[in-house]
Amino acid sequence: MKIAIVGATGAVGHELLQVLERSSLRFDELQLYASPRSAGSTLPFRGQDLTVQVTPEGAIPADLILASAGGSVSKALAPAWVAGGALVIDNSSAFRYDEGVPLVIPEVNGEAALSHQGIIANPNCTTAILAVAVWPLHRAFGVRRMIVSTYQATSGAGAKGMQELEEQTRRVLNGEPAQAEVFAHPIPFNLIPHIDSFQDNGYTKEEMKVVWETRKIFGDERLQISCTAVRIPTMRAHSEAITLELERPATPEQARELLGQAPGVKVVDDPQAKRYPMPLNASGEYDVEVGRIRQSLVFEGGLDLFVSGDQLLKGAALNAVQIAEYLQQHGALKAAEPARTTVPR
Amino acid sequence: MKIAIVGATGAVGHELLQVLERSSLRFDELQLYASPRSAGSTLPFRGQDLTVQVTPEGAIPADLILASAGGSVSKALAPAWVAGGALVIDNSSAFRYDEGVPLVIPEVNGEAALSHQGIIANPNCTTAILAVAVWPLHRAFGVRRMIVSTYQATSGAGAKGMQELEEQTRRVLNGEPAQAEVFAHPIPFNLIPHIDSFQDNGYTKEEMKVVWETRKIFGDERLQISCTAVRIPTMRAHSEAITLELERPATPEQARELLGQAPGVKVVDDPQAKRYPMPLNASGEYDVEVGRIRQSLVFEGGLDLFVSGDQLLKGAALNAVQIAEYLQQHGALKAAEPARTTVPR
Repeated sequence: MKIAIVGATGAVGHELLQVLERSSLRFDELQLYASPRSAGSTLPFRGQDLTVQVTPEGAIPADLILASAGGSVSKALAPAWVAGGALVIDNSSAFRYDEGVPLVIPEVNGEAALSHQGIIANPNCTTAILAVAVWPLHRAFGVRRMIVSTYQATSGAGAKGMQELEEQTRRVLNGEPAQAEVFAHPIPFNLIPHIDSFQDNGYTKEEMKVVWETRKIFGDERLQISCTAVRIPTMRAHSEAITLELERPATPEQARELLGQAPGVKVVDDPQAKRYPMPLNASGEYDVEVGRIRQSLVFEGGLDLFVSGDQLLKGAALNAVQIAEYLQQHGALKAAEPARTTVPR
Repeated sequence: MKIAIVGATGAVGHELLQVLERSSLRFDELQLYASPRSAGSTLPFRGQDLTVQVTPEGAIPADLILASAGGSVSKALAPAWVAGGALVIDNSSAFRYDEGVPLVIPEVNGEAALSHQGIIANPNCTTAILAVAVWPLHRAFGVRRMIVSTYQATSGAGAKGMQELEEQTRRVLNGEPAQAEVFAHPIPFNLIPHIDSFQDNGYTKEEMKVVWETRKIFGDERLQISCTAVRIPTMRAHSEAITLELERPATPEQARELLGQAPGVKVVDDPQAKRYPMPLNASGEYDVEVGRIRQSLVFEGGLDLFVSGDQLLKGAALNAVQIAEYLQQHGALKAAEPARTTVPR
């Protein structure tokens, strides 16, 4: 099996290489594509230096394309990739809301991936981190209402977002005024309650993505979800404060036990020992940290929790590779021939 | 009238001097007190250098004492101050929940200040910023449930909190590991969902303060409030994402109009022009910024909003001075004799 990464030199592309290196996915060849600006550079992968090629206008000679070059690139080129026989796992929002496109988090709705028509969408980072943590509770207790406030890292705007945070923080500490190019306002020692474009209803697209995507992934259009999405001056893990109204009452102990057994989740919930989810610890981790689990004070039998997950991993690269792993495990993706020895996680 | 500031050299003490300088409060003398460590230093006030004295063990020869030296100092000394004839406006949490102690935000329940028995409590910073913004909506539409997620600045831990953020951020940018002394964990490029001590119910005291204090200030024990309090790497303005269930439905337009006329509130809500509340703008401002006003997606006729207010001003020093101004305007506090010319705001 041949895999291609489109957008290999971006922040998510970088993580895709790291995750693939540790993945049990069996494949024979890895091709890297990016814009002409980055083409010709090399990236290391399992001891080799792979050369980055210019993303072609048409088909790509690969069985699986992991696309992470933005919505406009995916929108323009994915149909040609599919026509050329490739399966596309797309990290952009270009196809997420299309009826024939499964939107997949393997821990939640992996089986949806099996019914693709050439394109599988990878969810928005905030949604992915949220859904992994909330799904086990939804299945056991039935979420009726969900109120989410996010604390999103600058990595959500790619490598240049993290770079702007670092460079502009240096400026501020040197007594110079901060400038903003990637973000709408200076980000050092500030927050910005504005991610993606504003919609007619006053919510941002980022906030509505959480509503639309969680409903689609959970397969439950009745779910009532409200989100406030806020950019804060952190590097690469998103955090979220979540309040849940449940159909069947749950105790924090029940939630802790359930989440302790849930895949993709790490319960970090020992307040007396000062252990709770934080970007500092969640960055670089595959699992989403869940903690501060407590009985809701506004919904009887409801729950409050706090999560922190790596935006570039479960929020992007890791989930994409996990979709591919799921497909291969279910015989829905060619394996390499002969099978290669793989580096265990 | 003689005013004394206890804790004059702290972050709130510093702001008390600034606010008093611009205040219309009439008084003849200002005394400054602090711990022995800071005594002997001078602080400028209206062109004079005032010498900081050691806080005495007993009574203080002042008519009004603005106390901001922490809960243990207030707890130990306020009874003696009151016995000595002074009125105490206390910034700590020492007396906030005592039945005979009014907890006052002049824009909300100024009249409660008139029935003091020697001590008036100044609310917790998060509560003050929240209450100024939510009170007009509560009065008009009746808040039933309120879900709050906070984005709190390091100034909440005093001058040393802001100093730790700055110093440790420098270390991280120099490639050195961040250290934590004031906060439970390193704060640069991180967040910490832990402010004040954990309670038996899993909530922090900071989170419960918002519940207890908002109910007391609004005079409504039925109010259902849930809070998640999070420290983020900002300097001195707290922000809060607020979701409101209302007894009577409200539109964002109605809320905007109502809040546009509310004292202490500045509506900053023009998303298309990228105008919304942010710490960057709210820092140093007297008014609490309110924006991102939108129809709730989980409560029919409810509202979502985002606020940002200066933790050291409306969250502390400003509100204390405003309580004194309210009392003087209502003849419940001695005026200076003869009246001084004051510097207008």
